[in-house]
Amino acid sequence: MLSVRVTDSLYTRGPVNPADLALTKEQVKNANSKSVEGIVESDPWWVDVGLAREKIPAMGAKALLHAGPPINWEKASGPLKGAILGAVLYEGWAESEREAAALVKAGEVNLECTHSYNAVGPMAGVISPSMPVFELEDKRYGTKTYSNMNEGIGKVLRYGAYSKEVLTKLRWMSEKLAPVLQATIKKLKEDTGGLPIKPLIAQGLTMGDECHNRCVATTCLFARQIAPYLVMTGFDAKSLHEVTQFIKENDFMMLNINMAAAKAMSLAGDGVEHSTIVTALSRNGTDVGIWVSSLGQRWFTAAAPVPKGVLFPGFKEADGNPDIGDSAITETAGFGGFAMASAPAIVSWVGGSVQGALDVTNKMYEITYSKHKYFQIPFLGFKGTPTGIDIRKVVKTGIVPTINTGIAHRKAGLGQIGAGVVSFPMGAFKDAFKVYVDKYGL
Amino acid sequence: MLSVRVTDSLYTRGPVNPADLALTKEQVKNANSKSVEGIVESDPWWVDVGLAREKIPAMGAKALLHAGPPINWEKASGPLKGAILGAVLYEGWAESEREAAALVKAGEVNLECTHSYNAVGPMAGVISPSMPVFELEDKRYGTKTYSNMNEGIGKVLRYGAYSKEVLTKLRWMSEKLAPVLQATIKKLKEDTGGLPIKPLIAQGLTMGDECHNRCVATTCLFARQIAPYLVMTGFDAKSLHEVTQFIKENDFMMLNINMAAAKAMSLAGDGVEHSTIVTALSRNGTDVGIWVSSLGQRWFTAAAPVPKGVLFPGFKEADGNPDIGDSAITETAGFGGFAMASAPAIVSWVGGSVQGALDVTNKMYEITYSKHKYFQIPFLGFKGTPTGIDIRKVVKTGIVPTINTGIAHRKAGLGQIGAGVVSFPMGAFKDAFKVYVDKYGL
Repeated sequence: MLSVRVTDSLYTRGPVNPADLALTKEQVKNANSKSVEGIVESDPWWVDVGLAREKIPAMGAKALLHAGPPINWEKASGPLKGAILGAVLYEGWAESEREAAALVKAGEVNLECTHSYNAVGPMAGVISPSMPVFELEDKRYGTKTYSNMNEGIGKVLRYGAYSKEVLTKLRWMSEKLAPVLQATIKKLKEDTGGLPIKPLIAQGLTMGDECHNRCVATTCLFARQIAPYLVMTGFDAKSLHEVTQFIKENDFMMLNINMAAAKAMSLAGDGVEHSTIVTALSRNGTDVGIWVSSLGQRWFTAAAPVPKGVLFPGFKEADGNPDIGDSAITETAGFGGFAMASAPAIVSWVGGSVQGALDVTNKMYEITYSKHKYFQIPFLGFKGTPTGIDIRKVVKTGIVPTINTGIAHRKAGLGQIGAGVVSFPMGAFKDAFKVYVDKYGL
Repeated sequence: MLSVRVTDSLYTRGPVNPADLALTKEQVKNANSKSVEGIVESDPWWVDVGLAREKIPAMGAKALLHAGPPINWEKASGPLKGAILGAVLYEGWAESEREAAALVKAGEVNLECTHSYNAVGPMAGVISPSMPVFELEDKRYGTKTYSNMNEGIGKVLRYGAYSKEVLTKLRWMSEKLAPVLQATIKKLKEDTGGLPIKPLIAQGLTMGDECHNRCVATTCLFARQIAPYLVMTGFDAKSLHEVTQFIKENDFMMLNINMAAAKAMSLAGDGVEHSTIVTALSRNGTDVGIWVSSLGQRWFTAAAPVPKGVLFPGFKEADGNPDIGDSAITETAGFGGFAMASAPAIVSWVGGSVQGALDVTNKMYEITYSKHKYFQIPFLGFKGTPTGIDIRKVVKTGIVPTINTGIAHRKAGLGQIGAGVVSFPMGAFKDAFKVYVDKYGL
C-alpha cells in the first residue's frame, strides 16, 4: 500500500489513510473509460480563421501565449526567448531586440500558457494578439480550440528565429494567407458546416502520416479538400496563387490544425473525477508538464530532456535545446509518436529504424487505456492506436510516453537544427500519481 | 537442355541447336540490365492535354483504341463491348446502341490496341478520337505516351457502362475538365517544364499508395501541386470549382497518369536485343497479353482469368468478367501490385490481409531482375520495389506476376462490381519463353 505525503499547498490535506477513501479499481476504470470515450468521440471541425485577439476568449491585449507549463522570462530557454522577442517586434510593441527584451523583463508583456486558453502551438508556441489563428469547434462536446498557423520550415519564429525575414513571413501570413483561408472556410462552412478534422487524421494514418512530425498526407488531403472553396472566394489569381504555393511548399501546414484537434480531444477527456488519464503533455523548452484528467488542470512538471535524432549538417548534439512545444498534445490524443507504426518513412526525418518506429507504437500500448476506435494502423492489421495515457501504468511499468519532435538550437534566433524522438521524464508522472493517491487513495 | 519447336509462322525457323547460337548468361544479364535501367531511369513528365485525335500520332479518324492484346467485336467481352458502344455514341457515329453495334460489326470502326499507339487506359481502356488525353514526355528517352482521363467510380465507360449519365460525364470531361487541365499544365510548363511523375509515384509509395488500385496519395499530391497553376488559368470560379470538386471526389484521378508514366518506363526497357524482361502486361477482358523486350512487341496471349476479391453488395463471383485493362502496365514498371507492401490499407478495397499484401511484394522479388532504385517501400526498410519481370524466372519458379485490379460485370452496360487480385496465366510466359529460346537459344 502506498502511503504518500504531498507537500504542495494546493493539494496537501495531511496524511491520508487510503482505506478511508475506498476508491475501487472499478471506479477508476469507469472514470478512465469516460475520459477515453471523450478523447475518442470528440469531433473537432475547422470552422473559422481570425486574429488571436478576436478569436481567443479573454486573451489580453498585451498577452503572449507560449507552449508548455508556465514559465517566466528568466527561466525561458533560448528558442522561447527568441520567439517572444520576435512576437513583441511583430506586434510593434518595441522597435528593437533590446527594447523588446527590456519590455518583457519589465513585466509589460504577460507571458501565459497556451493551454490556459484552449490554444496550442508547436515548438515555442508563441501566439500574440495580432497573429491569425485557426478556430476549431468540437461538434460533439462544444469546445472551441485554437492554434497558430504553421510557417513552414527554415528560419521560423516557433524555433526561436526572429530576423526580418521571419517577421516578413509572419506579416504575409496575417495579411494574405489568413484572409484567403478565412474566406475559404466561410465558403466551406456554408456548404458543409466546416471541415471535420478527425476523418483527415484517420485517413492520414493510412497514408504514412502519424500527423505530428509527418503531416504531408493530411496537408495534401487538406489542400484537395479546400481547393473547390478556395477558388470561390473571389480573391484575385495572384493571391490565390501565393496561398496555394505556400500550402504546396509546407508539408507541416496541417500540423497546427491536427494539434488544435488533439487539444479538443484531450479536453473532452479532461475533468473526469477519479480518472488517471493524461489530458495534456507539453514542454516549454525548460520543463515538461502534464495534466491528469481528475487533477484540475494542474501542471506536474520535470526538467525537459534534450531530444536525440537527426541533426542538420553543421550542428552537434550540444546545440540542441531541451524539448519544447505543445505538439505532444497529438500523443495525448492517441496519434503522433504513438502512431509511428503508421509512418515508417518518418525515420528519414526523426532518425532511427522502421523497426524502432514499430517498437514505439507497440510499447505505448502498455501505458494506454485502450485502442482508438477510429485511428487505425493498417500495418498492425488495422489495430487502433494506443490511446489514453494512464499515469498508473506509467508508474507501474516504468515506461514513459515517447513522442517525436523538432529540435531547436538552444540559442535564441538560430532556429531548427533537426528532429528526433524523446521520452517524457518519469518525475512528472510520479508527482501526479502521488497527488492522485493523496486525493483519492487507490 | 531445352529443345523447342515453335509453330508460329513469324518466328518459326525450324529446330534450333542452342549450341549454335551460343548466347551466354552474361549476354542475357547485360541485356536485362539495360532493359531494367531503361525502366528505372525513364523520367516521364506530364506536359500537355488535348483530344486523342490531335495528340496521338497516326490515330485514325474512325479508330477506337482498347486495352490489351488485339481483339475483334465477336470475341470481345461484355464490358469491352459496352465501352465500344458508349464510345461510338459519344463520338456521334451512331444514334442508338443498335446502330452502334451494327456499325462496329460492319467493320466501320477500327478496333486497335492502345499499346500500338503508346497509349494506355484502365479496364476497357477505350479511347476514341474526341476524348481528351494526358500527354506525357519521357525527359530522359524522349518517348511520348498517352492515357485517357479517369471518370471516377460508379457508372463509367471503362467498366462497360454507356448510359446517358456516362456519356454526359464524358462530355463534361471533354468540355470542362480537359480545358482547365490543359490551361493548368500550360502554366505549370511555363514555370517548371511540366510535372514530373516519377517523384509523385515515389512519394506516393511512402504514403500508402501502390499507385494502381490505390492512388489517393498521388491524387492528393497532384491536387496540391497543380493548385497554384490552376488558379492562374483565368477560368471563371464556377469552372475551377467544378474541376477541383471532381478531383476532390475522384481518388483514381492519378491512376491514368501513373499508367501513362508506367508505359513510358516500360517502353524505355523495350526493344533490347537478348532481353528476357517483360515490357507489357495487359488484358482485354478475353485474353491477357504480354510483351518481352527482345521479341518485337509481339503479343503472347492466354485466356484471362476472373479476378478474386471484394465484390460490391448484390454481386456474386459468377458476375465477374475475365480480367481487363492496361493498368497492369504499373506492375510491368515495378509498382502497383508489386508494391502492395507499401499500401496495407488497400486490402479494404481489393480484399485479403495486410500479410497477404506483404507476401505479394515479397514473392515478386523472385521473378524480377532487381530492386527499383527510386521506388522504395518504407516498411521493408526502404527496399526498392521488385522491378523487371524476367520470363526465365517466371518459367523456372512457376511464380506468375500478381496484380491488383478492378472487377467489371461480365455483361455490357453494368459497370464495376468490385476489386481484387489476380495472377497472370503461365501460358503466356511459356509461349514467350519458347519463342525466345527458338530465336536465341540459351
